[in-house]
Amino acid sequence: MPLLFDLLGVFFFGVSGALLAARRGFDIIGSLLLAGLTGIGGGVVRDVILGEVPTAFANPFYFIPPILAALLVFFMAPGVQRLKRPLLVFDAAGLALFCTSGTIKALESGMNPFAATLLGVTTAVGGGLLRDVVANKTPSIFDPRDIYAVPAILGAGLVAVMWVSGVHGWVWELVVAAVVFSLRLLSLKFRWHVPKAVGPWHHDAELQ
Amino acid sequence: MPLLFDLLGVFFFGVSGALLAARRGFDIIGSLLLAGLTGIGGGVVRDVILGEVPTAFANPFYFIPPILAALLVFFMAPGVQRLKRPLLVFDAAGLALFCTSGTIKALESGMNPFAATLLGVTTAVGGGLLRDVVANKTPSIFDPRDIYAVPAILGAGLVAVMWVSGVHGWVWELVVAAVVFSLRLLSLKFRWHVPKAVGPWHHDAELQ
Amino acid sequence: MPLLFDLLGVFFFGVSGALLAARRGFDIIGSLLLAGLTGIGGGVVRDVILGEVPTAFANPFYFIPPILAALLVFFMAPGVQRLKRPLLVFDAAGLALFCTSGTIKALESGMNPFAATLLGVTTAVGGGLLRDVVANKTPSIFDPRDIYAVPAILGAGLVAVMWVSGVHGWVWELVVAAVVFSLRLLSLKFRWHVPKAVGPWHHDAELQ
Repeated sequence: MPLLFDLLGVFFFGVSGALLAARRGFDIIGSLLLAGLTGIGGGVVRDVILGEVPTAFANPFYFIPPILAALLVFFMAPGVQRLKRPLLVFDAAGLALFCTSGTIKALESGMNPFAATLLGVTTAVGGGLLRDVVANKTPSIFDPRDIYAVPAILGAGLVAVMWVSGVHGWVWELVVAAVVFSLRLLSLKFRWHVPKAVGPWHHDAELQ
Repeated sequence: MPLLFDLLGVFFFGVSGALLAARRGFDIIGSLLLAGLTGIGGGVVRDVILGEVPTAFANPFYFIPPILAALLVFFMAPGVQRLKRPLLVFDAAGLALFCTSGTIKALESGMNPFAATLLGVTTAVGGGLLRDVVANKTPSIFDPRDIYAVPAILGAGLVAVMWVSGVHGWVWELVVAAVVFSLRLLSLKFRWHVPKAVGPWHHDAELQ
Repeated sequence: MPLLFDLLGVFFFGVSGALLAARRGFDIIGSLLLAGLTGIGGGVVRDVILGEVPTAFANPFYFIPPILAALLVFFMAPGVQRLKRPLLVFDAAGLALFCTSGTIKALESGMNPFAATLLGVTTAVGGGLLRDVVANKTPSIFDPRDIYAVPAILGAGLVAVMWVSGVHGWVWELVVAAVVFSLRLLSLKFRWHVPKAVGPWHHDAELQ
């Protein structure tokens, strides 16, 4: 069951990688490589920092979702593209699953709650960051019109607080994932955003 | 002997890094750093994922090829540049050597054949990917006019299939490397390419 | 005491990350993430290569400097910006501290002197490299008008030579850090630079 959720997350993020490959005019192999990097990248970075063999390399099932993602985009690209809303929903589901499962894995490996929160966030946003960096694009987590990282930070922190308080188990993990998922969708619907890196009292012109 | 082949691969990839540094107007130290990153980058990522101390850090000989590459470009840049064909041949040799040696190393560390194939491909294309990412350029493995990654994927997969079938040893490894090398050169000569990330039945205009 | 120096280095580099976030128009969360990546990135790469749990994940104190850096830029950005000289001084201090402490840590982990030098340089320049790569900017260590990496290379090499000669201890480490710091400031004051990646006898036009 956790494996299934994880593979679904890899697939959702993989589709976003294959779509970016399509937009940049890459070929089908580039699409597959970018889908794979996006899907498993966050978890690989987490596991390397934990000093463990990355899950995606220990289990060949992880190779299937990126292949499906690249094929889906190859055969149905404009359709997938037009379905922008479902894609954002899938991506939000991946974000929610990865930030909770990543934090739990780090806590189980003996990380302190702060480090575990950071690794949960890394798992959730790392794949998308690598996708954009490798495709030579300013990462979308830095887009100030959006608060992509905030629900992941809150969710990972909440999982860490619950762990310290002795509250854990699958049910609670799914509850947090549902909260992250809802926050992400609400943030999109109501265009929530946070202040810029410089306070609003500074004129942009002053910064160069 | 395997060390010699590996150092040759580091040198060939190192030259490509130093040439990119020259084209981007970096200084000689930037050239050395980029040559080193390109030459050893793929192997370092492989070894970090395998949980081992990277070969390039265990053996100081690996420092020599990037220095030679940076000096070669410094003293003979337009000459090296004009020799575009030899450079592609060298790069193909590096690709062939790294994809077989990387796959073998991963199999010897106990990776499953799928993960070993991926790590062989990572060894072969990782250095060039890091070179382009760090120099702020869309990676050339994503260039749709070329099939850079395909011979490496086939070669790494072939090594893994042979390993599972009980066929291994230096002779076979060199045979696979020769196949990868030939495929790469043939792909350049006949301008082989694969379909784009989206099927040809979609108009580009539909994708935005 | 070494922890304090390290946290100061994280803070100085963190401020440079938050300032780049401000210039690129990222929001406050992006500023925090970029400050954190810049501050701890070099050390994390070093520790991953050494096969150890990164210091920044073992000790929650490392979370404080990036938060302070992001807040400082948020509340005082144009002020911080105008203080360009102090910022360069802080950055030089971070560079000096990280190149010596990184080399020492690698030597203590049993790395050979060449690898330890490279890891010291990686610690010193890695965070800034990741900062620029992630913000989709050509890394400033490749700027040919500057010799950012040279003092770090000399300092890390000097620490390694002294270690081999049996000279170590806090006092000597601080002496080397002071030398690196002074070299960096002198290089800025007198606009020292090194030759480009191609010898001066080649016309730029020949390189394309």
